[in-house]
Amino acid sequence: MSDAAAPTRFGEGPLSRAAARTAGDGPVDVHSAWLPPEAFRAVGSRRALVCGAGTLVGTVRHELARACARYGGTVAWRSGPADAAPEDRTGAVDLVLALSTAAPLPAPAAEVAEECRRRHGAGALGAEGFALARTGDVTVVLAEEPAGLLHGLFHVVRLGESAFGAGRRPERHRPAVRLRMLDHWDNVDVHPVMGQVERGYAGGSIFWRDGSPRGDLTRVRDYGRLLAACGVNAVSVNNVNVHATEARLLTDRLGDVAAIADVLRPYGIRVHLSVTFAAPVVLGGLPTADPLDAGVRAWWAATTRQVYDRVPDFGGYVVKADSEGQPGPFTYGRSHADGANLLADALAPFWGVVHWRAFVYDHRQDWRDRSTDRARAAFDHFAPLDGRFRPNVVLQVKHGPMDFQAREPVSPVVAAMPATRLAVEVQVTQEYTGQQRHVCYLAPWWSELLGFAPWGDHRTVAALAAGEGGGLVGVSNVGDDPFWTGHPLAQANLYAFGRLAWDPRLDPAAVLDEWIGLTFPPGPAGGHDLVRRTLHEMMDDSWRTYERYTAPLGVGFMVRPGHHYGPDVDGYEYTPWGTYHFADRDGVGVDRTRASGTGFTGQYPQPWRDVYESLDRCPDDLLLFFHHVPYGHVLHDGSTVIQHIYDTHFAGAEEAAALRARWDRLDGLLDPGLHTRVRERLDEQVRCAEEWRDQVNAYFFRKSGVPDARGRRIP
Amino acid sequence: MSDAAAPTRFGEGPLSRAAARTAGDGPVDVHSAWLPPEAFRAVGSRRALVCGAGTLVGTVRHELARACARYGGTVAWRSGPADAAPEDRTGAVDLVLALSTAAPLPAPAAEVAEECRRRHGAGALGAEGFALARTGDVTVVLAEEPAGLLHGLFHVVRLGESAFGAGRRPERHRPAVRLRMLDHWDNVDVHPVMGQVERGYAGGSIFWRDGSPRGDLTRVRDYGRLLAACGVNAVSVNNVNVHATEARLLTDRLGDVAAIADVLRPYGIRVHLSVTFAAPVVLGGLPTADPLDAGVRAWWAATTRQVYDRVPDFGGYVVKADSEGQPGPFTYGRSHADGANLLADALAPFWGVVHWRAFVYDHRQDWRDRSTDRARAAFDHFAPLDGRFRPNVVLQVKHGPMDFQAREPVSPVVAAMPATRLAVEVQVTQEYTGQQRHVCYLAPWWSELLGFAPWGDHRTVAALAAGEGGGLVGVSNVGDDPFWTGHPLAQANLYAFGRLAWDPRLDPAAVLDEWIGLTFPPGPAGGHDLVRRTLHEMMDDSWRTYERYTAPLGVGFMVRPGHHYGPDVDGYEYTPWGTYHFADRDGVGVDRTRASGTGFTGQYPQPWRDVYESLDRCPDDLLLFFHHVPYGHVLHDGSTVIQHIYDTHFAGAEEAAALRARWDRLDGLLDPGLHTRVRERLDEQVRCAEEWRDQVNAYFFRKSGVPDARGRRIP
Repeated sequence: MSDAAAPTRFGEGPLSRAAARTAGDGPVDVHSAWLPPEAFRAVGSRRALVCGAGTLVGTVRHELARACARYGGTVAWRSGPADAAPEDRTGAVDLVLALSTAAPLPAPAAEVAEECRRRHGAGALGAEGFALARTGDVTVVLAEEPAGLLHGLFHVVRLGESAFGAGRRPERHRPAVRLRMLDHWDNVDVHPVMGQVERGYAGGSIFWRDGSPRGDLTRVRDYGRLLAACGVNAVSVNNVNVHATEARLLTDRLGDVAAIADVLRPYGIRVHLSVTFAAPVVLGGLPTADPLDAGVRAWWAATTRQVYDRVPDFGGYVVKADSEGQPGPFTYGRSHADGANLLADALAPFWGVVHWRAFVYDHRQDWRDRSTDRARAAFDHFAPLDGRFRPNVVLQVKHGPMDFQAREPVSPVVAAMPATRLAVEVQVTQEYTGQQRHVCYLAPWWSELLGFAPWGDHRTVAALAAGEGGGLVGVSNVGDDPFWTGHPLAQANLYAFGRLAWDPRLDPAAVLDEWIGLTFPPGPAGGHDLVRRTLHEMMDDSWRTYERYTAPLGVGFMVRPGHHYGPDVDGYEYTPWGTYHFADRDGVGVDRTRASGTGFTGQYPQPWRDVYESLDRCPDDLLLFFHHVPYGHVLHDGSTVIQHIYDTHFAGAEEAAALRARWDRLDGLLDPGLHTRVRERLDEQVRCAEEWRDQVNAYFFRKSGVPDARGRRIP
Repeated sequence: MSDAAAPTRFGEGPLSRAAARTAGDGPVDVHSAWLPPEAFRAVGSRRALVCGAGTLVGTVRHELARACARYGGTVAWRSGPADAAPEDRTGAVDLVLALSTAAPLPAPAAEVAEECRRRHGAGALGAEGFALARTGDVTVVLAEEPAGLLHGLFHVVRLGESAFGAGRRPERHRPAVRLRMLDHWDNVDVHPVMGQVERGYAGGSIFWRDGSPRGDLTRVRDYGRLLAACGVNAVSVNNVNVHATEARLLTDRLGDVAAIADVLRPYGIRVHLSVTFAAPVVLGGLPTADPLDAGVRAWWAATTRQVYDRVPDFGGYVVKADSEGQPGPFTYGRSHADGANLLADALAPFWGVVHWRAFVYDHRQDWRDRSTDRARAAFDHFAPLDGRFRPNVVLQVKHGPMDFQAREPVSPVVAAMPATRLAVEVQVTQEYTGQQRHVCYLAPWWSELLGFAPWGDHRTVAALAAGEGGGLVGVSNVGDDPFWTGHPLAQANLYAFGRLAWDPRLDPAAVLDEWIGLTFPPGPAGGHDLVRRTLHEMMDDSWRTYERYTAPLGVGFMVRPGHHYGPDVDGYEYTPWGTYHFADRDGVGVDRTRASGTGFTGQYPQPWRDVYESLDRCPDDLLLFFHHVPYGHVLHDGSTVIQHIYDTHFAGAEEAAALRARWDRLDGLLDPGLHTRVRERLDEQVRCAEEWRDQVNAYFFRKSGVPDARGRRIP
């Protein structure tokens, strides 16, 4: 984090137009998400003192100033050790936000700093952490670095009045994961098939439109503010599938990237760039992109230096290589370590990192060949390379071995690379989880993934991602939609991603509760408790509802090919994509055992290599991912596979209908535009859930011939 | 046909650039199709006399002049009765092409005219017919109208030397069908999903590019020449799905249509236009398009008058109404007769016709509802309207009740509308028959359709289409591809369409033989017999080969949704499109009987209503179209349904491989560019046929559990 980076446009003021639009009582053009003016009522009605200097401290001051202008509080500022500015003489304060380096600190802050040092030692807060404590009648936020102060401010905003309650115990907060990043799959040009945003379900891109940067960066600035307020600290601004125009962001269109970096910098968010491995050829005119070629290495070094000349705090590169048609080191007979290290060496002088995606598999697989297993691919490609990557290579691993399904096991790569920095990648954009037309709160799913213990001990996925220099990466669900995410309730996924990246141990329901409290503050119509209760009822279990009415028992896919929305049980069954369920008249599922299948279970350490291998011990929700079983196979709950399919699909569709009924209770209690938008999407969710129910049930009834034990209608 | 129409650009000369490009020995830019220079050798080496005047007679003269310039013959011209031009004094001639109105006729022509009158009576040749006879050493072509003379010329070209052989018996030729039309599904704007040409497999449009007319009409002129030489006399120049830009061709972009009409007119081809039923609203700014509204009627009348002011021989309108999202009279609670008659009334003063498509069905069908049957839709909608259409309405009926499958029964609408003019629509573009990547000579399929006898007597489909004012319409397979049709062998489908429209009784193999003789004249490399034999071996049965490896026993579809290429057995099974096979673990097929199914069989007259109803009498190749049967059902050849599926799919894929092996024999005997193009497509056909084989076989093996009796590998 470089707080002393190039000049920014911050002078234009953080009170962006979008925020201004939402500040009044008139029609809302862009929804304020979890930062409505009301969220700042507690801090905005206090007397605050800010101690410290720099861009991010300026952001803290401006946030407070805006809140105070609305709610009657005051803001004073002491810029640094030698500074005795007039604002410092305001007298009594309720809230101090201070950098520990801004000594001499005002008394309450000095007291907290001393206590913190005593309890945790020097440097205990780190680059982004902060301490929060009450001392007397003053609430103190202390940080060692400016980013920590900003995070501390937003923590106080989340706490609201309770931050100022008596008897509050001291807290120390530091992010568990260093890299908390959102990858945008935004195209600069509108792609003829994938559009402006690949797998985007919220309109256009906030960065790009029709081949050009959007002239107005207001939305980008607002976005940065929202991300800072949930804990994200990095953004990649273009699709990992890098087409011709996007490739040029690295060179002659670098200015477009710099402009984005300038507006995100005040929120402590670094910009990263997806690059094509073929850049030396397509941009540099070199005859090769061979990572061991001296000319190629020189080209990347020079090009990267130019990037840092323009963007001194540039985060680094994101690369999808040798995957789904993207170029990569295989073209030159080199390994992925060779490829990643090439870029890492170019970035190292500037402390940049390369996010090298492990999503490498054969997408021209022969469906007739049951021995090839796409689930094996990432491990087979990357595990042998452990220890061969430079320290500034972050291997970015999709959470599961397949592709962001609603249910998959954790990727075995996570446990296979102890000598490699890892980032775990989840998909905030709901490609396979309802495309922001369905309510699907994903935090419980991510929480489960992050809590998975590959060795059955304390070493969870979260702990691995939290290891030195690790990361959690989400594919962004944001677009230029007025509600940011198409489905207003999908904002909760973006919020929860940031919060879980900061602290993976957070309870998803508690995170949702935070989000509800911020996003839906008590309004004039009352009913706040009903809103809160209803949203919990709708969202807490919504991912499992989605799972129930879609592909059963972990088998995955069954979506319409191409756009991946809605059911098509055989849609991917006879394709080259490696995504099969092998249903026949007798049974269903993929045999990935060592005993008789593809051997994928052997990629896990104990205990999971044996748990997954065992038909008895394998968790039911992953049964068909690991085993091919007859329809009559009895699950742990005593139900057969076929009856489980029927039961969950009837139940899931019923639950979708219940979501809509619950939402109807809130009519009149919420912004009408938001209520209508959600209502429309719920109609679609109910329709689509019934379609899933009927197609999946009909498919398996036609194949198995087994009637529903409860005699319900299967079409 | 108006030979006295508006001035044309014919003065630019019929020796178009494309033809010129193919005249030399250099690289071929645009393939000459069935009119290479060599096709004119016989006429070009004769002394010809042309008698008559007008644009089309001018075309005859120019065609002869070009041929003679190459092959050493001569052309003389007598323009009309009072004309004694110097050309007339050339003395001896080998070939006379004369309008019977150009009296006094030269002696050989007068002799033929007298004989023709004596045998057939006056007016025996009609608007487009001609007589051909040898008298002494002279070959005479006699016509009553200029279009007949042009058709007669191309007939002589087809005959080649044999037209000048001794002992040739007199012939009289008249087209069986009056409207022989190609519909272009070309968009003016590039449609975001469908592209420049909807269901086009031959590159862009010859008419339009990126929202504008193509500046150069050379290709259009060449196209008109090819069409005239196979018998087509009408073209619609834009897609029946009329989008915003295309709608304006009717009004402010009418000039684009007029320009096309001008270059097609010299070849006797009228231009038609697809219009949107909503035109009064979207173009005229009226509040309604209600066909009974006086303002709407006046708008159509005035608009149509303006069309004829610009294009005096304009053919008329083509309309897809209330179909797949297109607007129509249903919006206003009116019938399709009301809708069609509205346009017919506007066109009647100018002798124009409206082609009103009968392709109306519910494309939002619920797949769960087995009582709704898309196959019934056209009959249900239109049969009750018989007798209610104006005389200049042509009801344009797809040949089958579904949608251009490789196998369907004939549409029962054809037999249900005795008081309505009918055009039968076939699909020359290979949407469902291999998309011009597969060899699939369609004439045998069309021939079978045209020969179908709905009442089991002499009244064939061809006879019905040949009835007063009927027509045969093909969806064009032509684009801006250098070979016109993508797959060079798909040219044969275009040629055969014209020839069968002229004379439905022609033998498809004989038509193919004509096409081979014209397109592949003996070359310096020899091997002409091998070329001819090989192409017959490859193409004569290619449609049945395609049928064998795709959907079995008439059940249809099983294609990938959207683009309709390649197999996806369940691709349309759970969709709203009404295209199902209902395969389960016990059997497959659609019960369309009156006894237990949708009752579709009742739409046929006797004998077919009972033949199709009967499981025993129903032809095997339509078995699954009409019946749902167990896999063990025994076909007339003694095979079971499931074994038939396996056998035909193994056989079809083997035949595809044999096609390629045959083609390889021709290497070195044909233009290398053409040979390579076909070879590449054959590779794809072999691959795709194997994919069809394996997917269909695997699908039915997984469902039925019945092994192949011959033990072949089913994946």
